[in-house]
Amino acid sequence: MRRYSPVPFNEVNVEGNFWRERLHTVLTRTIPSQYRQLESHGLLESLKVPQPPPPLRIPRSRHNFTTQIFWDSDVGKWIEAASYALSHRRDATIEAEIDEITEWLAKAQLPDGYLNCWYIGREVDKRWTNLRDNHELYCAGHMLEGAIAYFRATGRRRLLDIMEKYVDHIATVFGPGPDQKHGYPGHQEIELALIKLYHLTGDKRRLDLAAYFINERGRQPHYFEAEAEARNEGPNDFWQKTFEYNQSHKPVREQDKVVGHAVRAMYMYTAMADLAADLGDPALKRACEVLWEDATARRMYVTAGLGPAAANEGFTTDYDLPNDTAYAETCASVALIFWAQRMLNLDLDGKYADALELALYNGALSGLSRDGEHYFYQNPLESDGTHTRWEWHPCPCCTMNVSRLVASVGGYFYSAGPNEIAVHLYGGASTTVDVGGNKVGLREESNYPWSGAIRIQVDPEAPADFTLKLRIPGWARHATLKLNGETVDVGANSKDGYVAIRRTWSKGDAVALDLPMPVERIYAHPNVRADIGRVCLKRGPFVYCAEQADNTVPVPRVRLPRNAGVEAVEKGDLFDGVVTLVASGRAARIDDWDDHLYRPDPPLDEPAKWTAIPYFLWNNREPGSMMVWIPEA
Amino acid sequence: MRRYSPVPFNEVNVEGNFWRERLHTVLTRTIPSQYRQLESHGLLESLKVPQPPPPLRIPRSRHNFTTQIFWDSDVGKWIEAASYALSHRRDATIEAEIDEITEWLAKAQLPDGYLNCWYIGREVDKRWTNLRDNHELYCAGHMLEGAIAYFRATGRRRLLDIMEKYVDHIATVFGPGPDQKHGYPGHQEIELALIKLYHLTGDKRRLDLAAYFINERGRQPHYFEAEAEARNEGPNDFWQKTFEYNQSHKPVREQDKVVGHAVRAMYMYTAMADLAADLGDPALKRACEVLWEDATARRMYVTAGLGPAAANEGFTTDYDLPNDTAYAETCASVALIFWAQRMLNLDLDGKYADALELALYNGALSGLSRDGEHYFYQNPLESDGTHTRWEWHPCPCCTMNVSRLVASVGGYFYSAGPNEIAVHLYGGASTTVDVGGNKVGLREESNYPWSGAIRIQVDPEAPADFTLKLRIPGWARHATLKLNGETVDVGANSKDGYVAIRRTWSKGDAVALDLPMPVERIYAHPNVRADIGRVCLKRGPFVYCAEQADNTVPVPRVRLPRNAGVEAVEKGDLFDGVVTLVASGRAARIDDWDDHLYRPDPPLDEPAKWTAIPYFLWNNREPGSMMVWIPEA
Repeated sequence: MRRYSPVPFNEVNVEGNFWRERLHTVLTRTIPSQYRQLESHGLLESLKVPQPPPPLRIPRSRHNFTTQIFWDSDVGKWIEAASYALSHRRDATIEAEIDEITEWLAKAQLPDGYLNCWYIGREVDKRWTNLRDNHELYCAGHMLEGAIAYFRATGRRRLLDIMEKYVDHIATVFGPGPDQKHGYPGHQEIELALIKLYHLTGDKRRLDLAAYFINERGRQPHYFEAEAEARNEGPNDFWQKTFEYNQSHKPVREQDKVVGHAVRAMYMYTAMADLAADLGDPALKRACEVLWEDATARRMYVTAGLGPAAANEGFTTDYDLPNDTAYAETCASVALIFWAQRMLNLDLDGKYADALELALYNGALSGLSRDGEHYFYQNPLESDGTHTRWEWHPCPCCTMNVSRLVASVGGYFYSAGPNEIAVHLYGGASTTVDVGGNKVGLREESNYPWSGAIRIQVDPEAPADFTLKLRIPGWARHATLKLNGETVDVGANSKDGYVAIRRTWSKGDAVALDLPMPVERIYAHPNVRADIGRVCLKRGPFVYCAEQADNTVPVPRVRLPRNAGVEAVEKGDLFDGVVTLVASGRAARIDDWDDHLYRPDPPLDEPAKWTAIPYFLWNNREPGSMMVWIPEA
Repeated sequence: MRRYSPVPFNEVNVEGNFWRERLHTVLTRTIPSQYRQLESHGLLESLKVPQPPPPLRIPRSRHNFTTQIFWDSDVGKWIEAASYALSHRRDATIEAEIDEITEWLAKAQLPDGYLNCWYIGREVDKRWTNLRDNHELYCAGHMLEGAIAYFRATGRRRLLDIMEKYVDHIATVFGPGPDQKHGYPGHQEIELALIKLYHLTGDKRRLDLAAYFINERGRQPHYFEAEAEARNEGPNDFWQKTFEYNQSHKPVREQDKVVGHAVRAMYMYTAMADLAADLGDPALKRACEVLWEDATARRMYVTAGLGPAAANEGFTTDYDLPNDTAYAETCASVALIFWAQRMLNLDLDGKYADALELALYNGALSGLSRDGEHYFYQNPLESDGTHTRWEWHPCPCCTMNVSRLVASVGGYFYSAGPNEIAVHLYGGASTTVDVGGNKVGLREESNYPWSGAIRIQVDPEAPADFTLKLRIPGWARHATLKLNGETVDVGANSKDGYVAIRRTWSKGDAVALDLPMPVERIYAHPNVRADIGRVCLKRGPFVYCAEQADNTVPVPRVRLPRNAGVEAVEKGDLFDGVVTLVASGRAARIDDWDDHLYRPDPPLDEPAKWTAIPYFLWNNREPGSMMVWIPEA
């Protein structure tokens, strides 16, 4: 059912300025510094069982459980990110680090294959007794993804062997058999990893186990209730109160609302879309489509942030999208990219690529600082200046999620379909795609996302008849296209957000796609109470925000009347080059308020020029106020 | 330093419709039903030590401690409210209930006077080891207030004797002596009770103990740190992280920002204002004035709700006043009334009466349902319909706070000063005030707060020269005044929000005060981000809200352009008579949005009539959306 295959990142050469710089930062700074953080905060030490895990070295968050319980996953995710770096360029230091971790894991692994360092080091007799809260399968999934990535990057399979042995063990513990547990992860993730393992090895048992976890989820009698009872806990003792939290409130095919913990939801939907493709399961695909519609039509920030609430790190009610308290976890936007990619490769519908791009350039990328060593866990759309990036977190999940994303960003640019090549993202990337045995070189050059002038050179080994599909982003109007200098009618040749050029391609064929990038005002659905009377500025794929560092007028006071002019202004000296937006807007006056907090006279405002920058860049200078949704008056 | 004395509620006959009805409900329904709730939820049982407290019968809140730890206080507060009811009309059933509780307490009290049922029933050896969290002094304060009220209402002093014995014990435990603890309550409250006890008995040791608690607070070395250390806890283990939470971050006279838990803050400021008066302490008075300014100029909702955040049940940053997540605990607005009354009686500055009235008719009264048996703990200014009143709460503090307030509301109407009588509130109330030995009858008649036409008859026993001061509310413009039919110039005779009539008064003198009550639009300071582009409707002392039950257009979509008309419409059949506001406004359209969540085209709206009701009345019908701050466009 998956008609398109993404061209993997290690076959794509990212050459454009925007991503080259970010890749460089992640490869040279983020990944090494993350290793140091894992080391200094005890996460590496925690793998050296049998000793119990070291104490927490930063104040714990207010979870009901210690974050140490998912440290295996953070190390696994770092191995994955680091392995993506190795795919770009081998590095003996990193490889030695991963090999050392591998030996700790080899030593920790129990004879039956079980390998969760927290349980082994603390209370191994309690393993598999609290799938709902205690993250064993989640940890296994991330470590497995790390092992797969390391094997792909280096060909070394010791870690992969260890993890396959663990997966074999998991497959004996869980399943439909009378002596097996009919359980599934409280935090979905292993499903994705198992599907990747299936794609690597072709071993269908891995796919079946992933499908088992997905199919069993939410069935009655409810596994988490039975499990709680076995722990002598009451059925109402669940600290999150509802199984919507982990999307096990009903069978997945019956789910039609995006609920609960946002990252768990996104990982699950990703796995569902994968399984829909790999198993040809139309009911799963349909469920994904319904959930997608719910997410994007009622529950997504304009930045592609997901999950407004801190209480469940997730979803609340339709249109509940507060700006300053937005949780919008970096991980959730990263995981939305995973899901969108799976959906996109089912049918090549540009709406999925639009969300993928939106998340990539906004809600996900905002999680990583320019210096590559500071992070956002939450990504609010408005701040009084107290929300700042941190170097590390009691729950460091987002750090490695964003590094593994950037390190593999090339994998989101192209797909190969049946006698088709599809280009989803622009920004300077070249690749070679096999089309019916014919190797087709593609070199896309542009200064995207800052400019929409895109040039693509198509170089088949030999002349070949195939379709080149170029994404016309949902935000782009009046796109123009030329093939070897001749105009192609974009409208007439477009479907679902892609313009198709079918012809016999020859070496040197030149495509010129122009996506005008005017400044756009965006409005939210009137049901979004937080955005009433407000407007958001966008240009190309970027959502913009007013940040205090660029402005003399206090940001909370900036206003943008509907008739105010806004100009795109390139600033070469800011963040190594960025297009800012300069508004000839207004600013609220406070000088006439004395000490009144409320009064019968309406507030006054005055003319004010103010500047906005792409949202993902905020809080890379001194702390200060920030606002995405600007009051019109 | 206190120049005015409030006329106590039991000397004021509340006759006007508005308060008479609410009083009737509280006396006949609220107080009896609260007894039943205390009984059925185990709070009464918990007093029957030595057995340990019964299990919680409703799910516990997410506190770090069991709410049982402050159950003594809830019973004490109910005794206070019930005793206020007895002051209106004696009731053998209620008195028997209180007498029975008294005997349980007598049995529980330890020989040395100690009387906290939770500690006695569970771990009496740990008493006085965690003042920061465990509410012993808070409980003592509320039970003492109950005992004082019961003695005042009935003359029975057994409970008062018990509590005085406990106070004697507390005075041996706490104080400056080398063998005494230099501690103070984590939750302020006992200070108020001790001052009331001093006012009752004249025993200055009670005042001194209150002053000790206030003066010791926030000094270095910090008592709560030393106490935590003695419990083998680290100095950073405090679950609230900062001593701002309980206003012990610095000595009280140095405090200039309203911070932390809102109820604790308000109780403390109330005690500070009392002590400023009783001890003639200008530094305490000055601190109160600075804190008052901070609270009302930067940190108060338009409803007089206080404390936006659930995390600390309290204050955050200046102008941070979100509407839908507003915590605005009922108790905090009730306690603001206490504080405002103390401040008002220092200097008779109408700004304190304005806040008192605002809290009374809005943020506090909203906490109690029309049927008198349902409550709000939090009082948000916007709701999607999921916020509803409850019958009982794991932490039932607000229930008895609002019942004791209403049961004693007459006490806020009048003050006697040096040859002066001041009238603060209107609404139909009569009293007799002693002015230099001359008994002056006052009968105020009006349909306030629905109408501003106020008639006051002044009846001195014998003709007497004194000043009658009538409050001109801050919201009132163009007030007119007539004395025996002759116009008095309000402006020329006004100061600090009171118009003064000094003359020789004779029986039958008639004052007619007219306070026009047009519909008012109120705007928030531009720094209040939540209210940008929004307007609030007021009429008289009432803040209005649009509630779904009155409207066909969905409330989140109502709009009020600046030029829209709003009319006051009396509805006799709604809530036994209420003035509604009917706006010829607009409503956002959503029919042209399809499934888009964001779009470049601005939202459209269309004409719509919609209705607003006084805020305090919301959620007395079916659940539905509610909005105080209405978008202008």
